[in-house]
Amino acid sequence: MEYELAQLTSHIKPLDPEWMARAQERLDSLTKPQGSLGRLEELAAQYVAIREELFPRLEIKRVVVFAGDHGVVAEKVSAYPQEVTFQMVYNFIQGGAGINVLARHAGARVEVVDIGVNHDFEPALNLISRKVAYGTRDMAQEPAMTREEALRAIWVGVERAQEALEDGVDVLAAGDMGIGNTTPAAALATVFTGRPVGAVSGRGTGIDTNTYSHKVAVINRALALNKPTPDDPLGALAAVGGLEIAGVTGLILGAAAARRPLILDGFIATAGALVAAQLVPAVTNYLIAAHRSVEPGHQIMLDHLGLTPLFNLKMRLGEGTGAALGIGLLEAGWRIYREMATFAEASVSGKKE
Amino acid sequence: MEYELAQLTSHIKPLDPEWMARAQERLDSLTKPQGSLGRLEELAAQYVAIREELFPRLEIKRVVVFAGDHGVVAEKVSAYPQEVTFQMVYNFIQGGAGINVLARHAGARVEVVDIGVNHDFEPALNLISRKVAYGTRDMAQEPAMTREEALRAIWVGVERAQEALEDGVDVLAAGDMGIGNTTPAAALATVFTGRPVGAVSGRGTGIDTNTYSHKVAVINRALALNKPTPDDPLGALAAVGGLEIAGVTGLILGAAAARRPLILDGFIATAGALVAAQLVPAVTNYLIAAHRSVEPGHQIMLDHLGLTPLFNLKMRLGEGTGAALGIGLLEAGWRIYREMATFAEASVSGKKE
Repeated sequence: MEYELAQLTSHIKPLDPEWMARAQERLDSLTKPQGSLGRLEELAAQYVAIREELFPRLEIKRVVVFAGDHGVVAEKVSAYPQEVTFQMVYNFIQGGAGINVLARHAGARVEVVDIGVNHDFEPALNLISRKVAYGTRDMAQEPAMTREEALRAIWVGVERAQEALEDGVDVLAAGDMGIGNTTPAAALATVFTGRPVGAVSGRGTGIDTNTYSHKVAVINRALALNKPTPDDPLGALAAVGGLEIAGVTGLILGAAAARRPLILDGFIATAGALVAAQLVPAVTNYLIAAHRSVEPGHQIMLDHLGLTPLFNLKMRLGEGTGAALGIGLLEAGWRIYREMATFAEASVSGKKE
Repeated sequence: MEYELAQLTSHIKPLDPEWMARAQERLDSLTKPQGSLGRLEELAAQYVAIREELFPRLEIKRVVVFAGDHGVVAEKVSAYPQEVTFQMVYNFIQGGAGINVLARHAGARVEVVDIGVNHDFEPALNLISRKVAYGTRDMAQEPAMTREEALRAIWVGVERAQEALEDGVDVLAAGDMGIGNTTPAAALATVFTGRPVGAVSGRGTGIDTNTYSHKVAVINRALALNKPTPDDPLGALAAVGGLEIAGVTGLILGAAAARRPLILDGFIATAGALVAAQLVPAVTNYLIAAHRSVEPGHQIMLDHLGLTPLFNLKMRLGEGTGAALGIGLLEAGWRIYREMATFAEASVSGKKE
């Protein structure tokens, strides 16, 4: 499967500056001072260059939420019990979670993927069952996954992107659910950005100061034990990552290969992006960083990827909630590009010479 | 008319902390870590406290765009000719401007008000004709308006809010159009924040460095000539303000008196808010600062008002475009509050004790 992955990533190319320029030419003809819609214009140009069409459609939007459990919760690093992962999956299916609300608001469908939840779900129409394992193993004791499990989980994500393309999806967004998952995300942040664990770790869903110090120690122990390195991103993902993080990595790679934008959520989804960008740096051209999370490591990750988030609303929920809000802004930029009148069409005078 | 204005402002009260607390109680019962949706939660609580209902409706949204001209353009302070004001009004009516696109995206109606454009429009169904004058006078030579004109323009805004309430509008947003209007907005910023003109002025629609220095000098000349003071906000508005800025002031006062939130746009609309807040400080409780504009004085104004913008997308178009994007975020917060399942409803376990 490493061969198939290499095949896939070989199709991911940087955006063509010619398409960016063509989009900017259109934007500059619209009835507004040049550049006055700032990042909305950048989003529009990026979308055109990703799609390589002058007037691409932007209609069908999908948020893919990967859910998985983490053996490292045995080390007591989280404020919530592990059962919340599967309980929240039911909440997603029933439409009552934050991501359901914000995806509805964005006109996007939510797809929930069981990629590694420690629970047997009844066969349910709304749940995509792709369980690689009943959660990862405790990374403070042994590698979280085998290399093969990590690859299988990535491939689950790739296939979700490929199926989305078949369904005509124009924009993908990535979300996550997994009690304990800020711990592997922080571990991956340290591996790929080189910053110390204390700098990239945060309070997750709301742990106290003692638990926080303990969490940092657990992550340091896992890193010392597994010795992950940035030049082996798959190995690092397997050693100290998570199944839902691997799913996000795969979704990103699949989206970029299919020339679709991928809207990132917060700390967990961006950990998946670190792995993807290490495998193929051009993948960042297809990413849109929606928000800056409260987790302190998130900005460090975004800086490493060269991405600037669109907004900071002090959110730290995950699930894809920040990404869902980002869909609305991408769509705003695209509608500006598509729907505004030009100076000629509206008979408006240009700038004085 | 000063008496009627005093009557109106006497109805504007600070928000009741009891309603904020009731809203927060509901937010804390929803299936997410407490506070994890950050500013979306704050927006929801503010909306509930403004409406004083536990489940207020948020359905009908309106952006009111005030258009007016500025005598000070005779001093050559703008990059675009004055005729662009009326040309853009036609563009608004035809639905081709940035604000039309972003209001459609937010599901909001755009109402265009001719409060002082230097042009005679044909009677048009989509234009609210409330012309107070054919533009202001050149504030570098004489007061921009008489006190009575400023009051009449404020009252135009108040009436737009009152009519919106009669139409069942739940949320109002303020926008502006007027070539040259960053000049009066910067003058008002200096009057009310006490910061020098050089600190609060920017490049507007895109003037060069020489024109910028000239613009600062013109504003300083207008201030020296008219001597506006913050303790007479009406007098300051008349001396160095604008008709569309006065319209925004009135819309804000009318919205707050009617217990409706008012979403601010950028530099120009926020200048109107400075006047309103000087008349009645509690009005800021009803304001939502959507974005931070590129104009350097905007953040200074927002700091003075104690408002934190929701996002910074490097926009500087005006028209209400930033405010229109803010509508989408307010609605996102309100839908979270309204539609998310509680821990009890979804059978999700709470935080470990």
